[in-house]
Amino acid sequence: MRQRLSVAEYTRGILAGDRTLLGRAITVIESKLAEDKVLATEILQSILPMTGKALRIGITGVPGVGKSTFIETFGQYLTSSGKRVAVLAIDPSSKKSGGSILGDKTRMENLAHSPHAFIRPSATGLSLGGVARSTRETILLCEAAGYDIILVETVGVGQSETLVKGMTDFFLLLMLAGAGDELQGIKRGIMEMVDSIAINKADGTNQQAAALAVNEYQNALHHLPGSSSGFVPKVIACSALEGSGIDAIWQMIQEYEVLTRENGFFAKNRQFQNLDWLHDHIRQNLEDQFYGNAKVKAKLSASEEEVREGQVLPATAAQQLINLFLGKH
Amino acid sequence: MRQRLSVAEYTRGILAGDRTLLGRAITVIESKLAEDKVLATEILQSILPMTGKALRIGITGVPGVGKSTFIETFGQYLTSSGKRVAVLAIDPSSKKSGGSILGDKTRMENLAHSPHAFIRPSATGLSLGGVARSTRETILLCEAAGYDIILVETVGVGQSETLVKGMTDFFLLLMLAGAGDELQGIKRGIMEMVDSIAINKADGTNQQAAALAVNEYQNALHHLPGSSSGFVPKVIACSALEGSGIDAIWQMIQEYEVLTRENGFFAKNRQFQNLDWLHDHIRQNLEDQFYGNAKVKAKLSASEEEVREGQVLPATAAQQLINLFLGKH
Repeated sequence: MRQRLSVAEYTRGILAGDRTLLGRAITVIESKLAEDKVLATEILQSILPMTGKALRIGITGVPGVGKSTFIETFGQYLTSSGKRVAVLAIDPSSKKSGGSILGDKTRMENLAHSPHAFIRPSATGLSLGGVARSTRETILLCEAAGYDIILVETVGVGQSETLVKGMTDFFLLLMLAGAGDELQGIKRGIMEMVDSIAINKADGTNQQAAALAVNEYQNALHHLPGSSSGFVPKVIACSALEGSGIDAIWQMIQEYEVLTRENGFFAKNRQFQNLDWLHDHIRQNLEDQFYGNAKVKAKLSASEEEVREGQVLPATAAQQLINLFLGKH
Repeated sequence: MRQRLSVAEYTRGILAGDRTLLGRAITVIESKLAEDKVLATEILQSILPMTGKALRIGITGVPGVGKSTFIETFGQYLTSSGKRVAVLAIDPSSKKSGGSILGDKTRMENLAHSPHAFIRPSATGLSLGGVARSTRETILLCEAAGYDIILVETVGVGQSETLVKGMTDFFLLLMLAGAGDELQGIKRGIMEMVDSIAINKADGTNQQAAALAVNEYQNALHHLPGSSSGFVPKVIACSALEGSGIDAIWQMIQEYEVLTRENGFFAKNRQFQNLDWLHDHIRQNLEDQFYGNAKVKAKLSASEEEVREGQVLPATAAQQLINLFLGKH
């Protein structure tokens, strides 16, 4: 294990935009070691006043939709217009496979080599909730390091979209023009969750189908209840491969930001996300303390056995264990 | 509020199969009052040795698929063959609408009037997790009251299917033969969760489409990973309206029960469900104690405010509150 630095060294490095130190600070945040958790909190505390200034954009879409190409093209578009871009990922499969999205840096080789971009694969070895918590904290570190745009990538599996939605300002769904069954594979809830849709691979012989898909999805979105952001979701065709439509997407996101900053939704949404994040931490911390408690540990297997065999009610066993935990009798 | 009886009176009534007392005991279980919670636990403790003997069947399907007609026909089929049937519901919408499934008893009028059936609408005013906990306990009460078959109905919204899957032995998905887009509206995960599929409304001019749908879904199921139950999921056409296919469905469920009792999955699955239920209670009980704690209550709004405004990290605020809760400094 690499040696840890002091809080001041991490902080100075992050604020100076040192990507190596930023990466090492993220490793501290992702660590499960108790001493790293203390260090992580101290680093985050010290950079907290310098956070919150980036625009946080979530990007989702099923495998094959061209997410990495899109992020590479979109990221380069942004860096070439003077923005600094950080790319993070929430990947429910990373626990098993050791990182399937963003794991392969060659997938975004050009962006990865830009001095204005920072790419970090999804943490491995953590639960999905743990990945989400560390990604939220990584966003703060990247903001302190001066990144203007944070892209958080995910795939449409399990709860990952809800988690990304809960930590970003704008949520973009990438889709393809298909053969009549475009809605397949997309969970119903996702359409209601996104701020806009990009129809990717609108190039070559696929352009006409893409134009049709734009209309189709625009109609579908119109039938959904209006978003509390006040923004009317748009559908835009693009080709990440050829670079077309990328400017229109960025323009739309900027319009969203202007509108929601003016109507107050932008700030309100972040406040709501912060509260949500607090209660998530409370939940997780309570469970950590409970399952880490020596008295609980000594009794848990016996209680589980009784409950498993149907001899004791789950509610009763839970109450007994919690009384032990809280020192009640 | 109606007067409560003693534990012995509830227990005697339930074991005697008294439906009025069973219903009143369920009301105690669904109550949020602290004294009712104590009473509920005592009732459940006293009937616990008489539980576990029923076959628990989960039934799901989108609105319009004919769930109530199916349950009425299936329930009458079972009662006419000497079974006692209880019908419960987990309804994520009941909080808002005051009970949308099973709320209207006239929907299952014939079954509701059978002396061998007991129909209980979904609890209202509870969270989805709360409804799930009370439904699990209601299953135990119904078993102690002598019901042989427990049908738990739900609609395909949110987490309700996962919850029903987590408390039943067999999970049936109702579908319709459609016009090429049969998979639409069905979340991908559900197909992997069900033990079998019934294609309802296979009557009149719809019979040929139903036969095609049976083949189509049978193929779809074959492409999914095999279930750990060892049972090969089946697709059966039926008409709840005309009563056709109902015997085939019951036969299949019986085959499932014989197979999984023999290969040990039936018992293992229930043990797993009990454990899961324990940890759900632990989680909920911890949160109840935390948010009900006087010191936490006194500090929470101030902490929320600091977190909302981004002045304090969620992790830090959570730790402070939990230290207060646990009496640490």
